[in-house]
Amino acid sequence: MARPARVTIQQPDGRHVYLYGDHTPAPAGYQAPSIQPGAYQRRWNPLRREWVLVAAARQGRTFLPDRSQCPLCGSTPGHSTEIPAARFDAAVFENRFPGMLATADRPPPEPGVRIEPSSGVCEVVVYTDEHEGSFGTLAPQRLDLLVEVWTDRYRALASREDVQYVFIFENRGEAVGVTLHHPHGQIYAYPFIPPVPDIELRAGSRGCLQCRLLADELADGRRVLIGERGLVAYVPGYARWPYEVHLVVRAHLGALPDLPAAGRRALGSAMQRVARAYDSLFGVPMPYMMALHQRPTDGRDHPQAHLHAEFYPIMRDQGKLKYLAGSESGAGVFINDTLAEESAARLRQRM
Amino acid sequence: MARPARVTIQQPDGRHVYLYGDHTPAPAGYQAPSIQPGAYQRRWNPLRREWVLVAAARQGRTFLPDRSQCPLCGSTPGHSTEIPAARFDAAVFENRFPGMLATADRPPPEPGVRIEPSSGVCEVVVYTDEHEGSFGTLAPQRLDLLVEVWTDRYRALASREDVQYVFIFENRGEAVGVTLHHPHGQIYAYPFIPPVPDIELRAGSRGCLQCRLLADELADGRRVLIGERGLVAYVPGYARWPYEVHLVVRAHLGALPDLPAAGRRALGSAMQRVARAYDSLFGVPMPYMMALHQRPTDGRDHPQAHLHAEFYPIMRDQGKLKYLAGSESGAGVFINDTLAEESAARLRQRM
Repeated sequence: MARPARVTIQQPDGRHVYLYGDHTPAPAGYQAPSIQPGAYQRRWNPLRREWVLVAAARQGRTFLPDRSQCPLCGSTPGHSTEIPAARFDAAVFENRFPGMLATADRPPPEPGVRIEPSSGVCEVVVYTDEHEGSFGTLAPQRLDLLVEVWTDRYRALASREDVQYVFIFENRGEAVGVTLHHPHGQIYAYPFIPPVPDIELRAGSRGCLQCRLLADELADGRRVLIGERGLVAYVPGYARWPYEVHLVVRAHLGALPDLPAAGRRALGSAMQRVARAYDSLFGVPMPYMMALHQRPTDGRDHPQAHLHAEFYPIMRDQGKLKYLAGSESGAGVFINDTLAEESAARLRQRM
Repeated sequence: MARPARVTIQQPDGRHVYLYGDHTPAPAGYQAPSIQPGAYQRRWNPLRREWVLVAAARQGRTFLPDRSQCPLCGSTPGHSTEIPAARFDAAVFENRFPGMLATADRPPPEPGVRIEPSSGVCEVVVYTDEHEGSFGTLAPQRLDLLVEVWTDRYRALASREDVQYVFIFENRGEAVGVTLHHPHGQIYAYPFIPPVPDIELRAGSRGCLQCRLLADELADGRRVLIGERGLVAYVPGYARWPYEVHLVVRAHLGALPDLPAAGRRALGSAMQRVARAYDSLFGVPMPYMMALHQRPTDGRDHPQAHLHAEFYPIMRDQGKLKYLAGSESGAGVFINDTLAEESAARLRQRM
């Protein structure tokens, strides 16, 4: 696929909407929703040595609306949504309830607390205008388009001076905290390199860690789920989540734009295979997080960066969730109730 | 309170039970439950640079039993529980579904994965033999005893060569993943210093960070909830959870045994005030985690260690939970929907 068609619309409150592929304009009388004023800051947590985003205007965010009130569907004459189009293939818009806001005012100083404007960009990626379904059920054309949308957003956000890391992710399922059912994901463009990719990059400062881990998994083979079309998916031997899967591009490439278009299609297709295996594992839609780790966009070289997707499904068994409780949250130690080798065998039957 | 009376009982499967205070022996015919065989390992996660505990024998653990089947109540003629006593003041026992097991076999090697025996000790601390209630409703005498139990367990576990960190914590509420309602907490005695206390200790390597943060909070004052009897509780300006509270011993002391008995009583009482404020905040029992951070027990000096309790309540508003989703889990960036100053004001009204 060549770069997809993109139409940019700026809403009256300044937020951008990007319509990808084909679309039909919004009906007459479309009323764009508006962002609410509020405090958007980041504060330095000196105990954990990490930034905490403060977004004290999100409490009123849309919470599991009825289907007829879905803000991610196309707009109709009676219902203006986030999308200024009656129908569309895929859409991205700046979140009306963001965790970061590039245009936020500089916060007042707090004695003893290091505070900065939150900066950053939070976008919502609407996978399709069809309300039902999920990433796992997207039709091939929509899936191909979605990966191109991610690639385009990575490029566009990477070019911003205030963005150091483009984080493409999906939260799926109410148990993960999802407040809208319409198939969608998100992009957070952080003004710093976040701790998790940062520690991965540091761990690989003497050569690519992903390349080594990939080779180890392929040599062993028992935890490998997919190994084809330039991609390898496996349950890492050191998984934290019972059915955690890492999907790694075999070639040492740092970000989506580095992949040829066919490689991107293969990546989307492999991601979908993982999501489908999850849904068949316990016979219910699996609540999961998907995190795409790519090269930082801070203008420095990161030769060790290696594109991969990490899936964290949060069920540990039929009807049972894995919680991040005292050991995980208060000590930082995960407990995994499964052996990665056994989890991989179970998942492989579903692929 | 002097050191509390303690009776040690070893169950047929080798696990220890410690009865504190008074107790009445188990009825005739008591049948001790037995630990199940399984895989207990720790595996090194090279991407996060942390140990993951693998405990692949816990899936069958007791899950929200009826009150009549509670394994933490006293034993009756018809119902043998984890506690070999008909009644008791407080009890500690080695968990039958542990995340770590000191007597676990050395695991077979896995190519490409660094695996060690899990080692470590997992104990359950039963606060009282009364099934109803919570930490927040413990009577003063039971509360005082509990803090002495913690102190005794810290001392006993610290003296073990295989224990480098004694982590006393509580998970409260089904939303945190609690599988038993009877008032209880846990102790994990890790064979390594876990990441969260480790990063705190490193952050304080040039002087005590807790002392400085405490002074900053007291100087500002707006986030302080309690400041008396040698203790200060506050919502840190850099809180990750909407109503996070840190309760810090004012004197620079590293662990419970360093505190005089009166100081320990004051600590327990202040912790209970925090728990009660949580329960009144949204009119429902607040699901929370409590983590006690103390000096490591690895035999080295840790002059910067400073005893404190961290509370992470997981509600962000009436009827709404805070989830650790994509940004938190996949990037390591917390989003807090509240301003610490406002959260502190709300909590202070409940103290």
